[in-house]
Amino acid sequence: MEQIINFIGYLGAFTLAISGALIAMKKRFDPFGVFIIAFVTAVGGGSLRDVLINGKTVFWINQTAYIYFIIAGTFFAILFKSKLNHISKPLLFFDAIGLGLYTIIGVQIGIEFEVGIVNCIILGTITGSFGGVIRDILVNEVPVIFMKEVYATVSILGSVLYLILDKLNVINPILQIVPILVIIIARLLVIYYKISLPSLYRNELK
Amino acid sequence: MEQIINFIGYLGAFTLAISGALIAMKKRFDPFGVFIIAFVTAVGGGSLRDVLINGKTVFWINQTAYIYFIIAGTFFAILFKSKLNHISKPLLFFDAIGLGLYTIIGVQIGIEFEVGIVNCIILGTITGSFGGVIRDILVNEVPVIFMKEVYATVSILGSVLYLILDKLNVINPILQIVPILVIIIARLLVIYYKISLPSLYRNELK
Amino acid sequence: MEQIINFIGYLGAFTLAISGALIAMKKRFDPFGVFIIAFVTAVGGGSLRDVLINGKTVFWINQTAYIYFIIAGTFFAILFKSKLNHISKPLLFFDAIGLGLYTIIGVQIGIEFEVGIVNCIILGTITGSFGGVIRDILVNEVPVIFMKEVYATVSILGSVLYLILDKLNVINPILQIVPILVIIIARLLVIYYKISLPSLYRNELK
Repeated sequence: MEQIINFIGYLGAFTLAISGALIAMKKRFDPFGVFIIAFVTAVGGGSLRDVLINGKTVFWINQTAYIYFIIAGTFFAILFKSKLNHISKPLLFFDAIGLGLYTIIGVQIGIEFEVGIVNCIILGTITGSFGGVIRDILVNEVPVIFMKEVYATVSILGSVLYLILDKLNVINPILQIVPILVIIIARLLVIYYKISLPSLYRNELK
Repeated sequence: MEQIINFIGYLGAFTLAISGALIAMKKRFDPFGVFIIAFVTAVGGGSLRDVLINGKTVFWINQTAYIYFIIAGTFFAILFKSKLNHISKPLLFFDAIGLGLYTIIGVQIGIEFEVGIVNCIILGTITGSFGGVIRDILVNEVPVIFMKEVYATVSILGSVLYLILDKLNVINPILQIVPILVIIIARLLVIYYKISLPSLYRNELK
Repeated sequence: MEQIINFIGYLGAFTLAISGALIAMKKRFDPFGVFIIAFVTAVGGGSLRDVLINGKTVFWINQTAYIYFIIAGTFFAILFKSKLNHISKPLLFFDAIGLGLYTIIGVQIGIEFEVGIVNCIILGTITGSFGGVIRDILVNEVPVIFMKEVYATVSILGSVLYLILDKLNVINPILQIVPILVIIIARLLVIYYKISLPSLYRNELK
């Protein structure tokens, strides 16, 4: 089980690295820049989470495998750049898996460090969503999840579900798998039906 | 006394959250984005301070009330968006209170962690001013306090005053209240008289 | 020896502060903004490194001399702004020294905290190169080392060389001096011959 989770975590890093690298190449970054954007997209959220928690070393320092998967993802994106436009759907699928898994990892770390319910949700959301925020800052764009995409909201929903199940004494592996699946499915539905958050600007013309 | 300070701290977070949310709405962020900008405006400076100091958990993880006040401020800004333009003066007033209080909290934490005088000033300034810097990075603008506003300089003055009073063995509550009031008044004077730092570019035409 | 290294470290901070301040003045920042950009250019990389490592206080909190050298560099840049365009070559030279020294300091801290080979390279690169990244984020530009300059790559090469020499049981001062010199010379060659990383976009017209 542990091994499966680790493997999915690495797969998430691999996929997020690909999507980060593709964005960096659209901006015509050099190879080093492409790698850095791949890196922060994949592990930026978890790094921010670990920095906010006192007494926690940033996770990839102890799990170097993440770095190898990110390097692999970067090379993969560089080599298959022209073809990857045709497989954007599988990429979105892996990205959704990464969102689900990373969110729940963040919530669990919050529980482990006894930070309280609200902070567990915050840490889950940061872990799942903020790699993309740091990526957007580095490529000098307004973070896309603040404007267009229902991404972090799915993270919040999944975190809340996990905490409810935990409260109801649901145990592993159901405790983990159900919220992860809910996040993945919700995210895919969001993409498929182009769902967006209710606009705050409805009554305005422009 | 403790309670009063806490209450002012929460009020500062509430107010800063409102001003952050208004800026995010000008950028037409979605509700999640609006909340995040409110969040970092309110507690970004203190978070950066805590991250720089070893052995300090980010403060809002242990003081969840901050998060509720930020949520409240965000809702307040969303609901009264159209009317808030008419009350920009009270907002600037609360913002000045937040600047004064947060600066002195930062200086006191610096003293507590025995980081030396210069670092106390730095930590005070970061606590008071850098929420706005992180906000501006996230909305993809050049931080306003680097270009136009005499904001951080007021923070520095207040920090120095606190350290002088502390050296002179002035005790609480005067030790705290006087620098906080000086920051608030100085900031309001800056706004009222439109004071800016001496320009470095005087002799140039454009 | 220790003293020489410290002095070079301070000189590096002084020089990086000058280059940061010049960039901030091109953006017409006010004096406070100019200082902040000088500050993050000089110590941003090392600060990020220390934040990522658990149990490490940010280095300039314990070495206040860095702050004085940054202040001095900022004043120097402001006073001699118009003349500094004529001495951009010496500035690039000092900048290369800073890159070499900071990189090796980062690698050594990685070894001290036993983070493994890959992370040592990452920490060396962050220490040497990421002050400029944070600077570019704050002035709202795409980080220059992601697009045009062979800067971080030189850092990586020097880090790898240090680790190889260390593995071969080469001892100080050769262990330190050789990689530092290699970084400095490599960086100067890059500047002189206008070397860039192989482009990922060769076959495209635009």
